[in-house]
This record gives sequence, C-alpha cells and structure tokens, in this order.
Amino acid sequence: MPRQGPKEDNLVGRIGYRFGRMFSLNSSSLRLGIGDDCAIFAPRAGHETILTCDWFLEGTHFLRAKHPADAVGWKCLARAVSDVAAMGAAPRCFLLSLGLPTTHTGRWLDDFLNGLRRASRQFECELAGGDTTCRADVLIHVTVVGEIANGRAVRRSGAHPGDLLYVSGKLGEAELGLRRIRQTKRGAGKKDRALLKHLYPEPRLALGRWLARNRLATAMMDLSDGLSSDLPRLCSASGVGARVEAPKLPVASISPSEFSRELAPLELALHGGDDYELLFTVSQTKARSIPRSFEGVSLTAIGEMTRDPQLLLIDDRGRESILHAGGWDPFLAPRKRKSKRKSI
Amino acid sequence: MPRQGPKEDNLVGRIGYRFGRMFSLNSSSLRLGIGDDCAIFAPRAGHETILTCDWFLEGTHFLRAKHPADAVGWKCLARAVSDVAAMGAAPRCFLLSLGLPTTHTGRWLDDFLNGLRRASRQFECELAGGDTTCRADVLIHVTVVGEIANGRAVRRSGAHPGDLLYVSGKLGEAELGLRRIRQTKRGAGKKDRALLKHLYPEPRLALGRWLARNRLATAMMDLSDGLSSDLPRLCSASGVGARVEAPKLPVASISPSEFSRELAPLELALHGGDDYELLFTVSQTKARSIPRSFEGVSLTAIGEMTRDPQLLLIDDRGRESILHAGGWDPFLAPRKRKSKRKSI
Repeated sequence: MPRQGPKEDNLVGRIGYRFGRMFSLNSSSLRLGIGDDCAIFAPRAGHETILTCDWFLEGTHFLRAKHPADAVGWKCLARAVSDVAAMGAAPRCFLLSLGLPTTHTGRWLDDFLNGLRRASRQFECELAGGDTTCRADVLIHVTVVGEIANGRAVRRSGAHPGDLLYVSGKLGEAELGLRRIRQTKRGAGKKDRALLKHLYPEPRLALGRWLARNRLATAMMDLSDGLSSDLPRLCSASGVGARVEAPKLPVASISPSEFSRELAPLELALHGGDDYELLFTVSQTKARSIPRSFEGVSLTAIGEMTRDPQLLLIDDRGRESILHAGGWDPFLAPRKRKSKRKSI
Repeated sequence: MPRQGPKEDNLVGRIGYRFGRMFSLNSSSLRLGIGDDCAIFAPRAGHETILTCDWFLEGTHFLRAKHPADAVGWKCLARAVSDVAAMGAAPRCFLLSLGLPTTHTGRWLDDFLNGLRRASRQFECELAGGDTTCRADVLIHVTVVGEIANGRAVRRSGAHPGDLLYVSGKLGEAELGLRRIRQTKRGAGKKDRALLKHLYPEPRLALGRWLARNRLATAMMDLSDGLSSDLPRLCSASGVGARVEAPKLPVASISPSEFSRELAPLELALHGGDDYELLFTVSQTKARSIPRSFEGVSLTAIGEMTRDPQLLLIDDRGRESILHAGGWDPFLAPRKRKSKRKSI
C-alpha cells in the first residue's frame, strides 16, 4: 500500500499508541502531541515554561545486560523530571528520542515503554513527541517541559552566608544499589531498598513545589552526580562556600560484610551519584518551618553556607578538611578516576 | 581549588561563554539560560509554545571525516528549526545535548560551535541549556522551542481534496550534494550549490510564517526524508490522497557526466532527503495569493490533493503510476535499501 508509512513511522506509531492521550484535551496543556512536525504546548497564564534535557545512554548511564528495560524506561524520565522538581516546578510533557538496534524494537522496547509509561503517569508528564533512529547502541534522550508560577522558580544562585543547607532522603543509596547490580551475574532483584533507589528513583516533585510555593528555599538543585560534585555548583552560582558536618549526613545502611574503605557510608554519601534527592538552602529565620520529614521523605540540615568560598567537611571531632569533588564526571576517563567515583 | 568544577562543568562553561546572551534580558523570552537545573522560557501572551527535537548522529546523519565540523554545527540546528518553520512558527531557544570523544573537545568543538552560533543568530534562536557527556562517537541532539499566535499553527492534517500541492525551492539538491561529498576523498569544497544545500540548509522560516499568518496553507510539513516518504505522512494525517505531476517538479541541475538511472533529476526530487523545503497545500480559491517566489525562494504547484487516498505520479504523457516511498528510513538496513535511498 502506498499509504503505508515506512518502518520508522510504524515505530513512532507504536510508541504513540502505547501512550495514548493521558488527559482529556480540555484538561491537558498539550494541544498537539505525536504525529506532526512539532508538538504544541499551551502554558497557563501567569506561568513560565521550564525546560530541561538529559542523555541516558547505554554503556555510559546504564548497561543493557544488567539494567531491566522497564527500569531504563522509568529512570530516563525520572532523572529529567528531577531537574524540574529542583526548580520547584511541575512537569507537563516530554519529548522522547530513541536510537535502537533492530534487535531491540520488540520485547525490549515493550518493557522499556511499560516503565516509561508508569513514570509518565506518576509524574503527570505526557509524551508529546520525539525522534527515532536505528543505532548499534541504545541511545535515549529526554526533554521535559514544565511550568511554574511567574517568578517562583528556585534557582541555584540564591543562597546567602548563614543559610542552612538541607538534603532530602538518604545519600549514597543509589550508588550502593549500582555496586550491588554490578556484582550480580544476571539481572538484579527488586527487593533491596538501595537497588530500588538505583533502578527506580523518585524525583522529589511534591517537596520541590512545596518549598517554592512557600518561598522557603533560597537556592535548590537536585543531587545527580554526588554531593561533593553538585554542592560546588550551587556554591559557585550563589557566590558562597559551605561547611558540611559529616556526622549529620543521612547515610545509607551497609551490611558489615560489604563495608570497605571505598564502600563506607560516608564515602557513598559524599561521592555517590544518582540519588535525585534535593539539596536546598533555607534562611535561619525560616528554618523552623522545615519539618523533619515531608510526605515520608526525611529532611536533614547537614551544614551551613559561608562567606568564605571554600567547601569544608567537619568530622565528628570538629576537624576541618577541604571537600574535593569526587562524584560522577563523564569526561574523567575510568583509569584516572579513583574507584570511589562512579563508572558504569 | 575546591570550587573548581570538574571537566564537564568546564565544557558546559565553554559552550555558554561562546554563545553569551544573544539578546538583552528585556527583549528575550529566555529568562534563565545555561547553568541551572532548567532553563526558563516566558512565552508571549496569546501565544502557544512549539516543541520539536532531532537526532544528529555521526555515522547515521553525518560522517566525521567528510562533513566539516562547522557544517555539522549549522545543520544540527537548521534541521530542527525547519520543523518550527513547517508549523508557521518562530523559533525562540534550543537545548543542545552533546556526546563527544575527548579528542573532539578542542578544535573540532570550536569549529562546531562556530557553525552552530551562526545558525543560532540567523534563526534568532538562543542557546538555553543542554547536557554533555563523553562518548566514542559524536552524538548530537537538539530540542527547539518556538512560539506562534494561538490557533495559527499549520498542521499536517488540514488538507482537503481539491487543494493544490506546493513545494518551495528545488527538490533533490541536498541529496545530490551528499552524493558529491561521498565521492570526494577529502572534505568538501564550498562553491557548489548542491553541496551548500546539503551542508548548510536554510529552513524556510519567513515563508512558513507568512503562510500561517495569512491563513494561506491548509496543511504543511517540511521535506526531510524525501517527497515520496514525506507526502504520504501529510496525506495520511489529512485523510486524502494526491496526484503529483512529474513534469512540474522543480528538479536539481545535474551535469551530463553525473547522470545515471539512479542519479536522474526526477529520482532525486522524488526520493532525495535533507532538502528542508516546505510542502504545503492551498485551497483553489487562495491559490491566486501564492506568488511564484517568496523572498527569492521559488514556490511551485506540483499537483493536487484527492479524495482517493492513493498517491499517484503522473508522467509527461499523462500516464499514472503509484508513488512508492523511497526516501530515508533509518530502520531499513542499507543492504535492503535500493541504491536510490539515502544511506550515509
């Protein structure tokens, strides 16, 4: 049939069919989805549009043999949505670009789309379009569009000396989950808390929106590369330094048999990536409004912002040392990285 | 220095520095650019936001050894902006995601950014953010955000039986340029019209906006994969067929020495990809408002939309044949493709 599109059209059609329309056209801000040259998004009056994007690439961000396709689908959207949470905004829709081997357009793609669809529904973020092509490796790129009331976005640049520094949840759990996945010979199980956090991270959307709506956070970002790599970015944007108190860090639980110098809770909390927790600063006068937990997620004050631009780590005896970036950096070749640094 | 970011930050910083802010904050719709978790874009009141994205991958869409980095930079943005032109909209900003070998973060990246920056200025489309990572192949992904007055976007789905079918410019020139590049042993020269069109395509922004603003086009799309692959998409979205008159097609000029069965002007015009011309339909009553050229770009009526959903090609003796899709499809393996199909 001449009207039958080529194979690429079939793949796009299959993805579109799997997702369908999540909301009715009246309630959705997406006026035109998959199937045209562009998607059309109608932001609400009085709102700004938020844009972010993330690579999720086989061999760099996940391993085909180790990571279930369902988790790859969930996580590629979750990590991009986490950036929206970090502004205090709400995600609305996303563009999905896929490069797939022809061997992965069947069962693997179905499982991938299952995980992606669950994430899409949970985050209330509709598929709006994308691009597909054929590649030897699985290449994924996600662009997320969100919105926030004018002027309410929380930037990285608003921290002041004296502000308290907070993190949500526990730090280092996702890195611990990655270590465990790499040690298993086959795919990973789904009962382990650290494994679940590595495979199915939960962006802190409700927390971010609450902090922004109530103007509680002076600065905010999400922790994707590890505290020691991400905190310098917030400090640099704000023109401040920080003192982090090691004993206060909410660390992961490690079994004694796993414990080693490199796999110690403090090392994981400082340098482990992929946690997608929120790192935010609060003025001392507003700190009383920050509860110990928000919707089941713990909130922990781990230090204070300083006029001195250094990043200092204070140990349990009050001794200071300089906190060096030891988190994830794709441009540091694995052989040059210390083993504590993540290298999938 | 503890505040010195890791190498990835340096790369992002270098890209941001190279682009700078294109417009003053007052005149720009981009309220927050590179350097935070998200960019913030403020669409104008009464306007919808347009979203589109495109892969541009080494080995699939360009060849590192054949395509100048400057042209790669220009084209990766131009082809995504072409989708915005095809809705009749105006581009505003873009997200750039790069996967680069460490060998390509020096001179190659500088040349790439030069080409990209020229495109960005010409299309008035600011860099708003993106993501960088380290890969063995050069991977590029571009997301473009644009805007258009509410309800004025021209979709693929509005063509009616009896509407006239138009194309801008010439068809097949970019494919001819690609053939010439593949035949050269080293990088390509820059004097050849077909080569220039392949390396530095010009999205038809002014034409698209003029057609949309004056409600002249009933349906529109850009030609990226070739007329025989793209026209079925417009027909399918509109629920119509088309009769294309071969003698009317605005074909490329080919030197007699190049001419062959596969490299004939008609074959190139039907199946050649990468032209980024506009394909649009106009009701018969409004056809008198379509000039022969618009700002130096020819506009040619090449056929008519039909109630019968077939796609027919009419030759110079009035004989009909079915027009089969023969353009670019990444999921058709090269060995299965006829040689007339593009396979970089």
